[in-house]
Amino acid sequence: MKLVERILAGDVRALARAATFVEAQTATGRELISELFSRTGRGKIIGITGPPGAGKSTLVSQLARVIRGRGQTLGIIAVDPSSPYSRGALLGDRIRMQEHHADPGVFVRSMATRGTLGGLAQGTLEMALLFDASGRDFVIIETVGVGQDEIDITRLADVTVLVLTPGVGDDVQAIKAGIMEIADVFAINKADMPDAARLEQEIRAMQSLGEETDRADAAPLRRVVASKGQGVEELLEVIEQVFEKRTRGSRQRAWRERLQEMLRERLLAVLPPHAIEEHAKRVAEKLEDPYTAVDALVGVLARLT
Amino acid sequence: MKLVERILAGDVRALARAATFVEAQTATGRELISELFSRTGRGKIIGITGPPGAGKSTLVSQLARVIRGRGQTLGIIAVDPSSPYSRGALLGDRIRMQEHHADPGVFVRSMATRGTLGGLAQGTLEMALLFDASGRDFVIIETVGVGQDEIDITRLADVTVLVLTPGVGDDVQAIKAGIMEIADVFAINKADMPDAARLEQEIRAMQSLGEETDRADAAPLRRVVASKGQGVEELLEVIEQVFEKRTRGSRQRAWRERLQEMLRERLLAVLPPHAIEEHAKRVAEKLEDPYTAVDALVGVLARLT
Repeated sequence: MKLVERILAGDVRALARAATFVEAQTATGRELISELFSRTGRGKIIGITGPPGAGKSTLVSQLARVIRGRGQTLGIIAVDPSSPYSRGALLGDRIRMQEHHADPGVFVRSMATRGTLGGLAQGTLEMALLFDASGRDFVIIETVGVGQDEIDITRLADVTVLVLTPGVGDDVQAIKAGIMEIADVFAINKADMPDAARLEQEIRAMQSLGEETDRADAAPLRRVVASKGQGVEELLEVIEQVFEKRTRGSRQRAWRERLQEMLRERLLAVLPPHAIEEHAKRVAEKLEDPYTAVDALVGVLARLT
Repeated sequence: MKLVERILAGDVRALARAATFVEAQTATGRELISELFSRTGRGKIIGITGPPGAGKSTLVSQLARVIRGRGQTLGIIAVDPSSPYSRGALLGDRIRMQEHHADPGVFVRSMATRGTLGGLAQGTLEMALLFDASGRDFVIIETVGVGQDEIDITRLADVTVLVLTPGVGDDVQAIKAGIMEIADVFAINKADMPDAARLEQEIRAMQSLGEETDRADAAPLRRVVASKGQGVEELLEVIEQVFEKRTRGSRQRAWRERLQEMLRERLLAVLPPHAIEEHAKRVAEKLEDPYTAVDALVGVLARLT
């Protein structure tokens, strides 16, 4: 049986092999996704993001437990940009996911490197599409750090859950400022801490400032204590309700984000490094201004594409 | 006297007028920067970033105090992506900066919107170049939130200071994973808290994992208590030592980052929204796969550039 057919039949070994091609961002991986694409769209792609210390990994592990308890399957993608510093963090996550280690219904992969054919976002999207095509009911994309790419990557999901936690510090305002608008669902984790009610009030207050959001559209919020598994089932139910509300328009919007990101990565991959380097040198030496340099680089791209 | 000449002479009213053009990302602003570019390069551009609750704004205010105490001048750019939720945060920062409100030696502007001619990164860079050309000794770029663009923007600075604080949570590992590598200097703020020594040890341990960094290259670290002004002078001295070590090569590397970012913003601005929308619709309806869509969009760009 061909690899594509085995993947579509949900064969875990075939999935593992395909995931390796996708992880390495090879041409084989890309051809597979191209062949599988028409069979995607059934799995629910959930993004989980939030500041450090919010307990994202614990929450993901608990969501996996609830999903498995229903007899459904999932794939988890831990996104961590290539960095010599990140090994420790990934290792920690893997230890936490050991609960599901022996269960073929929980398939975990990390995306940590930018391949030569594309970037981190494209690789993550391909992995999610692969999991989806293989019949996983849920695909969870979890960001590990807060690097520049990772919040972007969460946008590739159908529904993004922003995990916040009480008492992060006195300017908790600041973090919300940057990322409030990506939340389709809020999860207040460690909700047994004293300030949980205040955090909920603050989020509600900020939501009422947003111009577009009227009462019915405001992102729902659930309190959880992930370490004890409390409220996780209810959170998953709310996530599913958001999926049910999604329209053709919102699916199209998701693909707009994804195509923009793929395009950006493609163009930066096409441009020869020496072209950028040469102009960077000229600008650093004040032989040309940055606008002239960018004009020239646009010209180079136009000839190459 | 022409506006350009008044800016070069350090005239604060001329600077304010030019900053308004740059903030709105108008063609006039762009022409000004183009004319001023050959006169830039003297001011020290410092990026200040770090997780929420790290006390970035307080630290920036204290750095301003030290710089002014020496009789030098500075410009501060608070970067906050356009968001209805961010007003509160910006307002808070402005209140904290009131200490310097009446002092023309501290010129504060925020970059919050993506203009039609370019993006947030380009606007921020232009503002920094303007402050530099007007004779400011230092330009501080401070990120307000942790949105997807903001950490990228800190890279536009010559020297980036990563502000961390003890006791952020149990997976403090995770935040460092994403952003450790952008730090030219580490500032441990709230260093009078009990876990400061442990945080310093953790950072040192992570640095020794990094492949490129040998002892001499490792980013220096200073402990500060920004709220009491402790250690801020020493931090500024360390930042200046990093500047002194910078070579022609490192200036060229900085411009490579900047040009890539400007190029990315330019290309996304050029592409007609309806082209992306049309392909997003086709992909959402599974009439084409995402690779075919991106190929087509590259074709559209090639015809337009």
